[in-house]
Amino acid sequence: MRDLSADHALLSLNTATVRKQGDLLAIVEACSRHGIRAISPWRDQVAAVGLDRAVRAVKDAGLRLSGYCRGGMFPADGAHREAARDDNRRAVDEAAALGSPCLVLVVGGLPQFSRPGSAPSKDLPAAHAAVEDGIAELLEYGRAANMPLAIEPLHPMYAADRACVNTLKHALDLCDRLDPARQGGLGVALDVYHVWWDPELSAQILRCGRERMLAYHVCDWLVPTRDLLLDRGMMGDGVIDLRRIRGEVEALGFAGFVEVEIFSNDWWSRSMDEVIETCIARHRTVV
Amino acid sequence: MRDLSADHALLSLNTATVRKQGDLLAIVEACSRHGIRAISPWRDQVAAVGLDRAVRAVKDAGLRLSGYCRGGMFPADGAHREAARDDNRRAVDEAAALGSPCLVLVVGGLPQFSRPGSAPSKDLPAAHAAVEDGIAELLEYGRAANMPLAIEPLHPMYAADRACVNTLKHALDLCDRLDPARQGGLGVALDVYHVWWDPELSAQILRCGRERMLAYHVCDWLVPTRDLLLDRGMMGDGVIDLRRIRGEVEALGFAGFVEVEIFSNDWWSRSMDEVIETCIARHRTVV
Repeated sequence: MRDLSADHALLSLNTATVRKQGDLLAIVEACSRHGIRAISPWRDQVAAVGLDRAVRAVKDAGLRLSGYCRGGMFPADGAHREAARDDNRRAVDEAAALGSPCLVLVVGGLPQFSRPGSAPSKDLPAAHAAVEDGIAELLEYGRAANMPLAIEPLHPMYAADRACVNTLKHALDLCDRLDPARQGGLGVALDVYHVWWDPELSAQILRCGRERMLAYHVCDWLVPTRDLLLDRGMMGDGVIDLRRIRGEVEALGFAGFVEVEIFSNDWWSRSMDEVIETCIARHRTVV
Repeated sequence: MRDLSADHALLSLNTATVRKQGDLLAIVEACSRHGIRAISPWRDQVAAVGLDRAVRAVKDAGLRLSGYCRGGMFPADGAHREAARDDNRRAVDEAAALGSPCLVLVVGGLPQFSRPGSAPSKDLPAAHAAVEDGIAELLEYGRAANMPLAIEPLHPMYAADRACVNTLKHALDLCDRLDPARQGGLGVALDVYHVWWDPELSAQILRCGRERMLAYHVCDWLVPTRDLLLDRGMMGDGVIDLRRIRGEVEALGFAGFVEVEIFSNDWWSRSMDEVIETCIARHRTVV
């Protein structure tokens, strides 16, 4: 297990963590100032400043990426499917332009939430199938662009509206079915917030192996959690046994960044410097 | 699959659904008035009117029980373990006095939330072990009292504070380990709210079989869900494919009541009659 206590060379900042405090250029500047070496930006934040400027800012700052958020949202009715496909291909292209090691996939839930305007459905098995078909199709495009796809299992409380892949096991089942020969280009992004509760987590991390562990995200689970989406905790403020999970991930040989991703009305109300300084301190002491 | 459209003979009302509108005696009276044949009361509601009065009211109204809520909350530190054990034994005794077919177990999460005052811990595997030990011990007492224990897997968003058994698979693994010879006295209470998202649900319902399916609960999952605990939906108002899940449960031969259990600030703000009438209407049309 790597020792994070000496510095924050392995910390990556998911830019959603400070999305309310400034645009992507301001975030890049702040990361430089605080000696942060990697970020994981969101598409809307890139779009807001323009892809070219984002690429230049990241390069000029000498930043690396630990991921790019996000492709996915596959379930859609017939009228929305082509737009979804094109949208996901653009996400792959943007990730490549930014030099990301992977495109994170939030796979989508029921079609009316995944691609608004789609006909409503309660058919979860159909959504599962649409996700599998969508990843299968995007995988070809991603491989041609040398852009690995990282399926992110989301907490089951997001099954309807954000992602109907809710366990590491389900994500790895998809990897096995879509890449049975392990050619690569497909893996997972593991965020402790979504999977910490799972009694099968340790076994599935072992099953995952190093090649398919494309990204590792941290934050914390607060008790009580006051909002399903916007009340994630800073590492150390909640109940997740962060050391244990990171130990299991690193036992695979995982050598990537440890990415902090916190959606929180609380942390969004503080200054960017305070949030970043806290992330760094917690990275060194509790992650 | 049973036809519920003609009447509501198979509807049971979990009394938490109208807990803000009146005490247990008022709820029993309203159920009688609306032709409801079964209820599933909570311990605090029984305690508020006294066990003897509760037993008499249920008997006088000719009501049956579909369950009794709840035992469990097993993880505790050493200083709180004996009190937890005694508390659970009293729950068994009360369930027997009321003529319940089972005692529903909400197994508890980390000890500081399960039994407040216990030393804080982030050790989820230890909580799993404490749950298993606790059920094993209570099972002997339950068998002596002829009171089956129904493990209720709760949604993973309650893993820290309410129950660290969050899938039907985990609940059935416990049943297999604690009752390998299938002597009985141990099974599950299946609430669609907690398990609808699980891609393994159908397979695990099949695995469960009729003997271990001790209770079946319905409500609905709203999008958006505005509160982790108190925003359950009325059947039909959310995204759960209720008919499909009930069909799978009844294909086992399940012949029990369909219990409505809704914790909702919204429904608690309406009159008891309106809530009960809506439950009956939805029972006949969408459950």
